[in-house]
Amino acid sequence: MPQHRRLALTALACLLPAVASAATPYRSPQQILDASPASDWRTPDPANVLYMNLPAGRVTIELAPAFAPQHVANIQTLAHEHFWDGESIYRAQDNFVVQFGDADADDAAKAKPLGSAKRTLPAEFQRDSKGLKVSVLPDRDGWADQTGFVDGFPVGQDRQDGKTWLAHCYGALGAGRSNEEDSSIGAELYVVTGQSPRQLDRNITVVGRVLQGMELLSALPRGPAPMGFYADAAQRTAIQSIQRASDVPAAQRPKLEVLRTESKTFADVVEARRNRVDDFYKRPAGHIDLCNIAVPVR
Amino acid sequence: MPQHRRLALTALACLLPAVASAATPYRSPQQILDASPASDWRTPDPANVLYMNLPAGRVTIELAPAFAPQHVANIQTLAHEHFWDGESIYRAQDNFVVQFGDADADDAAKAKPLGSAKRTLPAEFQRDSKGLKVSVLPDRDGWADQTGFVDGFPVGQDRQDGKTWLAHCYGALGAGRSNEEDSSIGAELYVVTGQSPRQLDRNITVVGRVLQGMELLSALPRGPAPMGFYADAAQRTAIQSIQRASDVPAAQRPKLEVLRTESKTFADVVEARRNRVDDFYKRPAGHIDLCNIAVPVR
Repeated sequence: MPQHRRLALTALACLLPAVASAATPYRSPQQILDASPASDWRTPDPANVLYMNLPAGRVTIELAPAFAPQHVANIQTLAHEHFWDGESIYRAQDNFVVQFGDADADDAAKAKPLGSAKRTLPAEFQRDSKGLKVSVLPDRDGWADQTGFVDGFPVGQDRQDGKTWLAHCYGALGAGRSNEEDSSIGAELYVVTGQSPRQLDRNITVVGRVLQGMELLSALPRGPAPMGFYADAAQRTAIQSIQRASDVPAAQRPKLEVLRTESKTFADVVEARRNRVDDFYKRPAGHIDLCNIAVPVR
Repeated sequence: MPQHRRLALTALACLLPAVASAATPYRSPQQILDASPASDWRTPDPANVLYMNLPAGRVTIELAPAFAPQHVANIQTLAHEHFWDGESIYRAQDNFVVQFGDADADDAAKAKPLGSAKRTLPAEFQRDSKGLKVSVLPDRDGWADQTGFVDGFPVGQDRQDGKTWLAHCYGALGAGRSNEEDSSIGAELYVVTGQSPRQLDRNITVVGRVLQGMELLSALPRGPAPMGFYADAAQRTAIQSIQRASDVPAAQRPKLEVLRTESKTFADVVEARRNRVDDFYKRPAGHIDLCNIAVPVR
């Protein structure tokens, strides 16, 4: 069996460390993370963490009140009052999004009551850049003047108008809306599962991102109806519950930490991805797109 | 039931046409396609089409001999000799790739014989731009000097060194290799199912792309072992067969056409995606990334 076939199964995209020079040895992202100080990691505020409990397991979400404070508050109310418990994921469109909430929201007779959640909210598509600490990427982007990260969230920025917004990268959680800008309230939500649809940036309110469990959403069978809807209710995925972590006893919350995107460790990981110097890559890209960067979670 | 909830289920990313001005009415991509002349569509050469038959249905692939002639010839030989029949999809890594071929290729005692296929091939990472008709995109790209389409395939180009290469967009089919540049032969293949991993461009030989059936690959349960491998053979997806369309009687080949990427219709579809003028979008992006463009197939 020739050498090239023996390794063919394992070598794709593996990251074997190689020494770039004696002075600056290349470290793989994993080696960089393994050497990181504990202070480079943060535990998300349980008030801003949602557990989406599905038959196959748990999806853990972090909300972004710094960007969508009113949507986040409404979502926290809806979760606290068990709005999504017993509802479903009713849409999975290939290379785009899954969407969940009340599949009967269109039907006034069947729609689940919203409890004490607000019935209208302003659009929160973007915010003033003032007051934000952005870890800016030097890389060229086609969708935004500038990109980077704020507290673990990928963002776009416009330096002319002084605005910053959450970007529609893989795992982004957005608030479905109708044609009116202010028609989302956070009850019907979607998660990006395909090539980042950044044309939605500044057109929809993004409210957070998935930290863990994406594979429970991304591998769902695609809905056969137009736009990936499941016409047959039996095809939908049941949501057992969506809970605020802060409504769960502390002892029952799994420990979870997110790498601080303002840390040198994160900058080093990004650079190690931007210029991969290992036995596999023959031509390091010298570039990385915002949405190709996965913020490490442990 | 407030208006905004009634529409919440259907409005995300819908493309309702709106009149931009009396002189230049906006047409949705579907409206543009509906008005296209038959001559804007081509039937792929059946010699370059593969049918990957899975228990759940068929994945249809178009090979790109203009970019990877030796890999394509070897793949055609392997398919003609039924190399993949009874083999499996043995890897599904979330937000990255599925990989298929002979799961026992590492084991000399169990590996499936390669028949008359070649055991070594040169790397075919890129080719001279000379002789190619590229429909160039005006949009800024971070990974390549310039991007566009050649005969339905997304490409990157370097105007300095005069090279063009197939880009790792959603649906790209690549030849897995070991650490050596020339270690792929096309027996172990992968398909991109996640955010386009363009760092692989010019590092691996891309041999084609999936035309239909992506949802049969992208929705596979992710492999639990590192890099998405299925440690347990029972978790793998059986490949019933991979056939060349030209080995199938003409009457049994489903009719399939690909929009010509050099047509005005395609340019109009791309422009309609770049600047969406409808009731939903409040801020058209004025931009599109190479890998956000799906080449229409019917």
